Amino acid sequence: MKIALDVMGGDRAPDEILIGAKEALTSLEELELLLVGDRGAILQLWPEAESNPRTEIVHCTEVIEMQESPAAAYRRKKDASITIASRLVRDQEAEAVVSAGSTGAQLVAGLFELGRMEGVARPAIATCIPTLRGPRVMLDVGANTDSSTENLRQFSWLGKIYCEIALGIRNPRVYLLSNGTEQEKGNELTVNTYQVLMAEEGLGFCGSIEGRDLFNGEADVIVTDGFAGNVALKTMEGTAEALFTMMKEAFRKSARSKLGAFLLMPALKKVKNSLDYEEIGGAPLLGVRGLSVVCHGSSGAKAICAALIKTAQWIESGLQEKLAANKF
Amino acid sequence: MKIALDVMGGDRAPDEILIGAKEALTSLEELELLLVGDRGAILQLWPEAESNPRTEIVHCTEVIEMQESPAAAYRRKKDASITIASRLVRDQEAEAVVSAGSTGAQLVAGLFELGRMEGVARPAIATCIPTLRGPRVMLDVGANTDSSTENLRQFSWLGKIYCEIALGIRNPRVYLLSNGTEQEKGNELTVNTYQVLMAEEGLGFCGSIEGRDLFNGEADVIVTDGFAGNVALKTMEGTAEALFTMMKEAFRKSARSKLGAFLLMPALKKVKNSLDYEEIGGAPLLGVRGLSVVCHGSSGAKAICAALIKTAQWIESGLQEKLAANKF
Repeated sequence: MKIALDVMGGDRAPDEILIGAKEALTSLEELELLLVGDRGAILQLWPEAESNPRTEIVHCTEVIEMQESPAAAYRRKKDASITIASRLVRDQEAEAVVSAGSTGAQLVAGLFELGRMEGVARPAIATCIPTLRGPRVMLDVGANTDSSTENLRQFSWLGKIYCEIALGIRNPRVYLLSNGTEQEKGNELTVNTYQVLMAEEGLGFCGSIEGRDLFNGEADVIVTDGFAGNVALKTMEGTAEALFTMMKEAFRKSARSKLGAFLLMPALKKVKNSLDYEEIGGAPLLGVRGLSVVCHGSSGAKAICAALIKTAQWIESGLQEKLAANKF
Repeated sequence: MKIALDVMGGDRAPDEILIGAKEALTSLEELELLLVGDRGAILQLWPEAESNPRTEIVHCTEVIEMQESPAAAYRRKKDASITIASRLVRDQEAEAVVSAGSTGAQLVAGLFELGRMEGVARPAIATCIPTLRGPRVMLDVGANTDSSTENLRQFSWLGKIYCEIALGIRNPRVYLLSNGTEQEKGNELTVNTYQVLMAEEGLGFCGSIEGRDLFNGEADVIVTDGFAGNVALKTMEGTAEALFTMMKEAFRKSARSKLGAFLLMPALKKVKNSLDYEEIGGAPLLGVRGLSVVCHGSSGAKAICAALIKTAQWIESGLQEKLAANKF
């Protein structure tokens, strides 16, 4: 099983990306990697990459940076790592591409190198969020900013199939993210989408869900436009982080609480880990003709390793084939 | 100082509303309350309400329920508590109205009984959110679902003035909630609004902020449309609640962590309280001609008391006059 890894993308590239790659190779015997990036930089950090029978360097000279306009940079930088890596999937030399680089650039490369699935107007990024009953799916969390009712209808099906395959949940309950649970609540987009989803036979649409209830695990798939989804996802991250910071500060204030914190450390660590995106791995860009997995820009080795292992599982379970077989 | 209190509105009305009222009267000498609701129900719970020189019962027979369509219910129920309470402000018999009832109904009553301030097309609900550097202002968190660039421009000024007066922050830093910090990131609404806010002299606009950074306290005022704002606010609440539930479960799992949790309880309680909406009080509906303060639907006595005390402070500091003096 061959995965194309964008070695140059991400805040901690290429060092952490390569360490994550090595870890994934160790834990997954059948994995082979196409390391897409600057040959010199790769060999300096990993001299054996050239002789290792399970890795192959695909040299390229450019990388699209986070702050660049994705579309313009894609056109200008013909030899960008995310473009080359996506093309390897198009040409069937790799079964998936994994990147922690600019999400916008990965989206553009997905659209132009891989193309859209039949019946899908816009792809969506599907992420797993931690809930009290285990991970659940939320999409779109940032591939698009302005979406139509028809876009959201397509996201619903993409999310449902992804949830079934990635999380093994049969007949997942699909919900729409809104500002209230009643059908008539919401903005124009969600009110119209609610109507449309109710009529979708076999989708498993159950209604609207508020931000407050994202964590109770009632919704297996949460459908939203990429703007609200991104706000919700990042607010979750920010709230959890702020809470841990507040606790740390509060715990330092007395000898009693210092001792308490010491005793609680293992339990607290466990809770923190369950919320850690580094453990969750990547988020696939659903709706393009080829598996393209988006990683957090600040991904370290652990996150890259987790994303590679997840990606391998998705390849094995035939995620792309099952998505493509759906009548949108 | 007279405040009209909607005794019938809220999940825990009228019992908890009246207990909160009593507490506020005890802690604030200059406070007088117009108790708007069913006379019989009020007297059964609080027989002295009739003879108390600081309370007056304003009898009404109806209440607009949470699940009712606000506009239709407002038209049909002429004697609804939120309508009567808002009218008392219009007629200058009270200086503010406080309610934990249907937010939609309070908005409609605000629009039709009080009317909009000059230059304000749509009012916005401004709430205080807890951050690592103290409370900050976010608006709109749910008065509107679909907003225009011009709406958001007006919200910015309302939020700035409210922040100065309610939190005492001079020259607050105003940010736009978005899915990235760069100017070109965002949906159509936020990208356009960014442009417009940059040109507003004296506003103190500093750029865009992501959900992840809501808690660091860098932004004093966070401007957003009511849909995204509501999603962000409720996601915060849900995340904090879920985290505390996860910790409780994790802490129960060993004798070591049980002891640790016992020792940490006071510190944990403090963190939890700083996030508790019951301590934060109400959120004013900014942009109507009269002070109308929205409370959480599930408000108990503590939240009502806190809201009444905050409302009294806002009256004293001339919040409404300062908002009305602004050239929008």
